[in-house]
Amino acid sequence: MGHTLGQLAVKVQGIVKGDADLVIERLGTLEKADKVALSFLANPKYQNHLATTSAGAVLVKTNELADLVENAIVVANPYLAYAQLSHLFVPKTHGWKGVHSSAVVSLKAILANDVVIGPNVVIDDDVVIGEGCVIGAGSVIGRGVKIGQNSIIYPNVTIYHDVVVGESCIIHSAAVIGADGFGFAPSKAGWEKIDQLGSVVIGNNVEIGAGTTVDRGAIENTQIGHGVKIDNQVQIAHNVVIGDNTAIAACTAIAGSTIIGKFCTISGGVCITGHLTLADKVHITGMSLISNSIAEGCSYSSGMGMEPTTKWRRTVARVRRIDEMAKQFAQLKQQVNKFLEKVDK
Amino acid sequence: MGHTLGQLAVKVQGIVKGDADLVIERLGTLEKADKVALSFLANPKYQNHLATTSAGAVLVKTNELADLVENAIVVANPYLAYAQLSHLFVPKTHGWKGVHSSAVVSLKAILANDVVIGPNVVIDDDVVIGEGCVIGAGSVIGRGVKIGQNSIIYPNVTIYHDVVVGESCIIHSAAVIGADGFGFAPSKAGWEKIDQLGSVVIGNNVEIGAGTTVDRGAIENTQIGHGVKIDNQVQIAHNVVIGDNTAIAACTAIAGSTIIGKFCTISGGVCITGHLTLADKVHITGMSLISNSIAEGCSYSSGMGMEPTTKWRRTVARVRRIDEMAKQFAQLKQQVNKFLEKVDK
Amino acid sequence: MGHTLGQLAVKVQGIVKGDADLVIERLGTLEKADKVALSFLANPKYQNHLATTSAGAVLVKTNELADLVENAIVVANPYLAYAQLSHLFVPKTHGWKGVHSSAVVSLKAILANDVVIGPNVVIDDDVVIGEGCVIGAGSVIGRGVKIGQNSIIYPNVTIYHDVVVGESCIIHSAAVIGADGFGFAPSKAGWEKIDQLGSVVIGNNVEIGAGTTVDRGAIENTQIGHGVKIDNQVQIAHNVVIGDNTAIAACTAIAGSTIIGKFCTISGGVCITGHLTLADKVHITGMSLISNSIAEGCSYSSGMGMEPTTKWRRTVARVRRIDEMAKQFAQLKQQVNKFLEKVDK
Repeated sequence: MGHTLGQLAVKVQGIVKGDADLVIERLGTLEKADKVALSFLANPKYQNHLATTSAGAVLVKTNELADLVENAIVVANPYLAYAQLSHLFVPKTHGWKGVHSSAVVSLKAILANDVVIGPNVVIDDDVVIGEGCVIGAGSVIGRGVKIGQNSIIYPNVTIYHDVVVGESCIIHSAAVIGADGFGFAPSKAGWEKIDQLGSVVIGNNVEIGAGTTVDRGAIENTQIGHGVKIDNQVQIAHNVVIGDNTAIAACTAIAGSTIIGKFCTISGGVCITGHLTLADKVHITGMSLISNSIAEGCSYSSGMGMEPTTKWRRTVARVRRIDEMAKQFAQLKQQVNKFLEKVDK
Repeated sequence: MGHTLGQLAVKVQGIVKGDADLVIERLGTLEKADKVALSFLANPKYQNHLATTSAGAVLVKTNELADLVENAIVVANPYLAYAQLSHLFVPKTHGWKGVHSSAVVSLKAILANDVVIGPNVVIDDDVVIGEGCVIGAGSVIGRGVKIGQNSIIYPNVTIYHDVVVGESCIIHSAAVIGADGFGFAPSKAGWEKIDQLGSVVIGNNVEIGAGTTVDRGAIENTQIGHGVKIDNQVQIAHNVVIGDNTAIAACTAIAGSTIIGKFCTISGGVCITGHLTLADKVHITGMSLISNSIAEGCSYSSGMGMEPTTKWRRTVARVRRIDEMAKQFAQLKQQVNKFLEKVDK
Repeated sequence: MGHTLGQLAVKVQGIVKGDADLVIERLGTLEKADKVALSFLANPKYQNHLATTSAGAVLVKTNELADLVENAIVVANPYLAYAQLSHLFVPKTHGWKGVHSSAVVSLKAILANDVVIGPNVVIDDDVVIGEGCVIGAGSVIGRGVKIGQNSIIYPNVTIYHDVVVGESCIIHSAAVIGADGFGFAPSKAGWEKIDQLGSVVIGNNVEIGAGTTVDRGAIENTQIGHGVKIDNQVQIAHNVVIGDNTAIAACTAIAGSTIIGKFCTISGGVCITGHLTLADKVHITGMSLISNSIAEGCSYSSGMGMEPTTKWRRTVARVRRIDEMAKQFAQLKQQVNKFLEKVDK
């Protein structure tokens, strides 16, 4: 898997300082990289690591930084360059080629010539799978699903009927795309199921994490825009629309019919209630509850960080009585002001 | 899939206003329905949409509303009628019939004659599956599991040994029913596993969402009542008992041995601690922490909605010092009152 | 499955009081156990149940407690003894033996002689599975994975390439070990994926719950120590390190690169942000947000319990204005103090 420093520099439009023929075998962190590893300095505050790193070479932003190490690639954005070069060092993730003999593929499905279908994959009628796709072992691709070219579906994914997945998408294991949205009409006898007649449409270059669930729409489709990145165990309810290039961290839940803008960054453990509209470029910090629409693309929070339990308990007890305290405070203020007025006269 | 308006009206005990022979091909929202779609007006506040909808017909509550559109079905509960009619418009979800040749079915399992067992399903010894059940591709049904008639198990579900699933249940993909409850006894050497010897018993007409986990009991069974509806990625710990017709939204977690009443509605992202008892008809709003039992069936909350991060940070800083503020306030109040008393004399 | 009381006492180094030949068929709770069930009194506050239990025998801590029932085993730690004896009463969980004919096992994989490989399991190249392991139906074991002896992988688990699982581990269904960490570099075109080149290394005696996800490291490995117990639907991000014997309850999320100490107990629904360090023996209560490192092993909280919604709304409204109230309070205090000083003169 070796690449010379010179070859790597070309890939990221960087300039080599030092030995362009040095063979790089892997990527590494500044702290732990060895002589055949390329590291990177993304954050200037770690600059002091340059003096001590054992890395064979380092991606850096300036000539001055390059001078602090033996070998470097100077590049405008070292972190982006690291990301781009990471693609060259991926080990072999599976040993399968072509359509595995144990896969169950409907005669009514259309597979492009060069797809990899792993063992025990199930592909139902009317599925269309584009060139270069890899479907991992045990995944189930429902009736009428369309998957665009170069998408990777990891093992044990489930995609329900009629879902559309774009090109160059990645869906991780145990994700479920297109299960029924949670819709019921109350009746005297209990809850009457509302069959979910919409689907899920996923754009290009979308990544969906392990165990994430994206429900199909009640009548219209749930929509995930191009370039959206979704972490593990995220829940996206029916009819949600997510704008292009929004990133959503793990364990966040988005309730039904909410519309999220483009280029939003939503941290982990967030709950967003239903029927809201969030503007583009909204940032939400971890464990916040979003219960109102957001018109302006800035940062929002409601998570409260921990304290030692004994102190926290006193805080909670006071918060519970804050309404009473506020009333007493208003009264005292009035009393004082009245008295002071009288005195002033 | 077409049905005439007249046929649909009969299904929901409604009265046609307009063309009873109109053929309806699909359901639609008031905003997006076309000429062959039936829509519904569930919430009177959207009444103005009746003037502009392109829907072929609309489910409405009164004759007066019916007069605002060309074709209508007048029915006591349009939302419930929409739910009932949704069942007629479900597309074909899978292309399999009978027991697929790739399924692994124990000779000691008993399958009713008309079940559908999808590709790569695994059915262990002593399983009993009732009439009309559909077991989706890749699902694993453990030793001794009983599934009542007309239940649908979607693909890649796992049901552990000895679990009982009622009639007309729906379990979505990646759900896990009957995994071990989280039980360990501390010892000097670490944690000693407590084998979970109970099971899970699920009533009739229960729906369980994608990625939801219901753990088996430690000694007794975990119990899910009839008509319970559980959304995606809900966690139900060992020994929990959930009363009939309770509905639980996504990403809620219920800790061990808690007993939840009937007809409760629990929003998403809620955490309920262990060993509690919740009355019937309790409503819990999103992202609340329930750490005490609830004796009365009303609404409970502890979620706090977001604010702009800069403002929120000031709020949090003040909340952290609320105990100090309360003490200073009490002191000031005493000071003022003492002074005013003296003045009064 | 019967064992005499005498046999059971030997297993836990206890002393029989009463009939050592009594045959015990199962374990039971004090409230519901029958004549052939062994129960236990772990918590002295339930001592009154001893008078009414129908249990054939009870595990108790002292001779005095033993005197309150007909048959007992006196043992230093009844709860631990119950845990140890629970292993004897596990029913048969599956009906498979050896390597099932439907399993797809790479010729380049190495399986110890006495493993059980369930139906439709997929084992990729270069996998090594130790003696006594059981791999449940439909699980997918990725290229190069190593699993130590006596580990149990339940059905429909996915383990990505190169993950290392220790000895005597248990991984429950729908868990995903080794999916990509959530790493992207922002670029003008959107998010550039950072391929995740590390792996996951899991120690011995680790249990991982259903639907839990443990991501592979970006460059180094994600590490789970020996004896760690992880409940259902927990999310562990890339590069996280968890110390030996830490226990993590359901639906907790730990963000990237955080280091957690040994013997920590983390309750359910907790969010821990990235790049933190938590000391040994930290306890975190349910639904807390941990956004700072913790240097001392005591208890931390930020969860706030519910109140009736109407009262809670008033509380929230006041909390939102706490900054204003605090400022007004400071002003009033100053005003009063100034006045009182003047009066004193």
